[in-house]
This record gives sequence, structure tokens and C-alpha cells, in this order.
Amino acid sequence: MRLVTVQQADGTTSAGRIEGNEIALLPFADVAQLLESGDAWREAAVTGRAPLASATLGRLVPRPSKVLCIGLNYIDHIREGDPDAEGPAFPETFTKFAESLTGADDDILLPAGSGIADFQEAIAAAAKVPVVSLPVTSDCVDWEAELVVVIGTPVYRASEAEAAAAIAGFTIGNDVSVRDWQMHSSQWIPGKAWKGLSPVGSVLVTADEVGVRPDLQIRCLVDGEVRQDFRTSGIEFGPVELICYLSRIVPLWPGDLIFTGTGQGVGITKDPQVYLRPGQTMVTELVGITQAVNRLVAEENPHAGGQAEARQSSLLVQDGV
Amino acid sequence: MRLVTVQQADGTTSAGRIEGNEIALLPFADVAQLLESGDAWREAAVTGRAPLASATLGRLVPRPSKVLCIGLNYIDHIREGDPDAEGPAFPETFTKFAESLTGADDDILLPAGSGIADFQEAIAAAAKVPVVSLPVTSDCVDWEAELVVVIGTPVYRASEAEAAAAIAGFTIGNDVSVRDWQMHSSQWIPGKAWKGLSPVGSVLVTADEVGVRPDLQIRCLVDGEVRQDFRTSGIEFGPVELICYLSRIVPLWPGDLIFTGTGQGVGITKDPQVYLRPGQTMVTELVGITQAVNRLVAEENPHAGGQAEARQSSLLVQDGV
Repeated sequence: MRLVTVQQADGTTSAGRIEGNEIALLPFADVAQLLESGDAWREAAVTGRAPLASATLGRLVPRPSKVLCIGLNYIDHIREGDPDAEGPAFPETFTKFAESLTGADDDILLPAGSGIADFQEAIAAAAKVPVVSLPVTSDCVDWEAELVVVIGTPVYRASEAEAAAAIAGFTIGNDVSVRDWQMHSSQWIPGKAWKGLSPVGSVLVTADEVGVRPDLQIRCLVDGEVRQDFRTSGIEFGPVELICYLSRIVPLWPGDLIFTGTGQGVGITKDPQVYLRPGQTMVTELVGITQAVNRLVAEENPHAGGQAEARQSSLLVQDGV
Repeated sequence: MRLVTVQQADGTTSAGRIEGNEIALLPFADVAQLLESGDAWREAAVTGRAPLASATLGRLVPRPSKVLCIGLNYIDHIREGDPDAEGPAFPETFTKFAESLTGADDDILLPAGSGIADFQEAIAAAAKVPVVSLPVTSDCVDWEAELVVVIGTPVYRASEAEAAAAIAGFTIGNDVSVRDWQMHSSQWIPGKAWKGLSPVGSVLVTADEVGVRPDLQIRCLVDGEVRQDFRTSGIEFGPVELICYLSRIVPLWPGDLIFTGTGQGVGITKDPQVYLRPGQTMVTELVGITQAVNRLVAEENPHAGGQAEARQSSLLVQDGV
């Protein structure tokens, strides 16, 4: 089954289930609210129908309570960084925030403009600047296409069976990474949690359809050129294992997301390093299911400080503050 | 000024301002809602008065949207781990979740029972177990008393002045750390974000009173024995610097918390390592302002899997699911 959130003409949204060329609308504002209904959504009466081809799809989960992320979870990716490396003994776990995410069709504002497309050189330059006036720039923004798990039921300290039952399904995501900020220190979040850099797909394929250990194809294309193409069967810690591990630490709730790690083909491991550039279009694809298509746009004023005040205010207004 | 959330006899809560031996009650459900009012709370009419001595204080911010945490931010603490180390060039940034926090008077459930009080031995033992059946145990739970910044106004890509203006004030916190899980891999969150392990103080002292770069004394006591005693003047990246850095990455909102890092005296650096034990009482103190007093209680059934199902259900019910 494929679930979506549909933008309606009156400005509201509705959850829906794809049925052939149509979307059967369901009585929930979005897929997050649908999942919070427990199993009730499976029996809910269809409230209307919309043609799939002309539908505008919104966010599956507008504001997840948690966005957990896993690094170094495909051996081919691990070894493009270090040819002799083994996989980690436990999942490499970090987080994004709800604000770090963006929609499958949204523009991504790149903090371009440092002029340094080598993450180590960029870090060395930044280390000479007081942190209060650190420029908000990076020319080291990289792609990481990933399978994203969507949690369907509350789960805490799950057994293997409970973890499997807690998976609503999957979508695509791109763990877009500001490599110089990621490597500022030992903990990666400063390069992983940037506002609005990480697109998430607009179609959820349920575990009913693809299983809880799916073997799906994932691709990332930049201006039509294939940068990543891998199958999720190569994952080290799969969705069930990740929920067992993460739910030992903290409860997971319906709509929580787990970015499960990327495969081979990121830009930081190229020689010279290759990064995203304003003007490009990035496609992140769960092949046959959903894709995010995001234009990369340079921020108008990437520097912080006094000059940025007007822009800061306008961004906060956009967030509804 | 000192702000609190007061538990009322009817089960509701009210924000309040300490005035001598009294709390002047303000028309907000808690300090988080007070802060969300912008500056309106400063002019709000007092709705009642309660004696401070007999008041039961609740959480300042029941559910922060973000809990950002900083590691390795005092040179004395850095060097108890590595005598030759320098401070990091940028703030070492990780996160907790809202569920990771607990109240200033609440019991802390320790996942005790591994029988291994050496984090490296505990990791080696865990690495032999499939992740789906990893025991939810640790005898390596450590204390980290910290100054906690409470954000007062929305802030994104702050200048130094904007960062200073965004600080509502400070409270105490303890970044209680499950050391073996923290060191499972390179990223620390699996040992830092455990449900309910990290107490936060119940009094906010405003930046009006102590400034935005306060020099306050912090102590951690276990069963009355002083384990940590340091001043916040020893901080590497202070509150203003941290807000400048973190707000370059993602917007911060009223009620967001920043755990700013601990000083010298944690248990992992002792030889042999010293950790928290069930039956002990831990006091975490912002001297002269507020303290958290938490009894440490062994969890009844620390193992995950089938046996834990009844307990899991009861914990989720407690969370209101």
C-alpha cells in the first residue's frame, strides 16, 4: 500500500491511499495523523477521490518528534572512506531535527560561498575565526540518499517481533551533509542538522507491501548524472535491528523517522572532492516508489551577523513565529 | 529574577516568580508558556501567591522542542580524560530528547544489572550479542553536572548581540551518561539520550540577574560526597558563543535547552571507574540558585524482549499514550 499527504485546493491537507491512478482520501490531515490513529485508519471510510497525476503531495509527517539517523551502515560506503575499515559493532547514531527536513519538491537553500571545496581546508580557515562571527557558508555540501523508516506504533525496548510490528513503512530521504561543519569536531550533528537541507519523500510504501527488511533500489542523481545506485539489501543494521537498538534508549512514536544510512558514491570521498552547487537539481529516488526532486539554490545572504538580521526575521516569519 | 513552575492542588500548574518567601503566580501554565509570550509575561498581572517553602515545583519546560548538548567544554574535564589534550576548535555538539529529561525531584531508574563496571569490558561483552537481543543493562552510568541555558526568544543565525538577547536564563542539569552505550560507536547519543536519566533544575535564574556569561558554582554530590565542584567561568564556549554556533545550523525556540558541558570529576576517568548505583541519592546543584535531588532506583526488569512486554506497556501508558 502507498500512503500520501495531499494538498487540497482550500489550503488544507488530507491523508490518502494510492489506488491505481487515483488517491482515495482518508479522514486524517496527513499521514502522521493517520498513523497516530493506531489501526483505525485501515477501516476508515474514504472521504473523496483525487486523480494521482495532478495531485500536489505534501509532507508525510510535517513535524516528526524524532529524526534519528544512522551512519556507516553499508560496507561499500564505509570502505570508500577507508578501504580497510570494518562495519561498526553498533549502529552509529545521530540526529536531525524536524526543521532539518524539507519537502520532496522544495528548493534547497545552499549556504554556498566559502570558495573552499575541500572540507579540511574549510575547517582550517574557520578555526581562525571567532565562533561568534563564523560565516554561515560552505562549499562542501554532499548528498547521501537513504532508506527512511517511518514508525507506525509506539515502541520502547522492542523485541525483534515488536520492532517489526512497529514499522509503518518506508520512504526516501537524503541526509544532505555540510561536510566541513560535520567534521568540526568528533560529533557530526553540526553538519547533519542544518535547517531545510534534507528532503524526505512524499510516498510511504507500507511494510505490508515490501516487508520489514526490504530489498529496494536507491539512487541519487545530480543534473541527471547518477551519483549513487545501491540496494538496501546491503544494509548492515536493518530496520528491525535499528528499532531494537534505538528503542532500548528512548521510546519511538508514530511518525518518528529513521534515516538508515547511505550507500556508496558520496562526494567527500572523490579526489578531488565533489559537492552540490547552486543551480543543480538533485533527485533522490526509491526506485519504483517515490522520488524527491529538489533544485539547489544559493542563499542570498549566507553570512551571519548584523547584515543577516532582516533575513533572519523573514525566515522566522516563514516558520510561523 | 527566579522563575518556576508550581504544581497546584487541582492538578494544574502555573508559572511563577519567586519574591522573597513567596511565589507570585503568573497567568501561564508553565515557564515554557511564559517564555513563549515574548515580553508579555514581564507585565502580566499576578494571579495569586503561594508560600515558597511548601510549594511543589514542576518542570520549567515540560517538553522542549530541542535539547542540545555540548561535550568537552571545560579544559579540566578534557584533561582528566587525556592530560595532553587541547580544547576542541568548535563546540562538540550532540542531543538528548524531551523524553531523556526528568524532574528535579524525580527518581531515576537505573538500567543496572550488567555486573560489569568497566565501560570497555561492557562494550566487548555486548559486541558478542546480536543487536536485536541486546540486554538493556549498564553498570556504567556516570554523572555530569552542567549549566543549562534556557532559550527565551526565537533565534536563527544570531550575531553576538542577538545571541545574548535570546538567553532567558539558566538552570542546572545533569547529563547522566551510560558510558558503555556512549562508546558503542563514534557518536555519543546512544549513551546520552536514555529515557528519564537526565534531571533538570526547577528554578530558572534570569540573565537579568546573573548576566549572559555567568560565573556560577556547580556541584554534584552522591550520597553527600562531593564528586564535582567547579565554576562556570572555566567554560570554553560560553552561552553566547554556543547560541551563535548552534543557531547557524538550526533555529532555536523559547524553551529550547542547551546543556553546556561538565567540569572535572566524572566517574569514567577514575581508576577504577566509579559509577552510579541503585540506592544512592544524587544532588546536582547550581549553588545558591537551585538543586536537583534524585534518588537512583534499580529498574525492576532491565532486560528487553518478551519478558519486558508488560513493563513496556506500562511505561508507554505513563507517557500518556
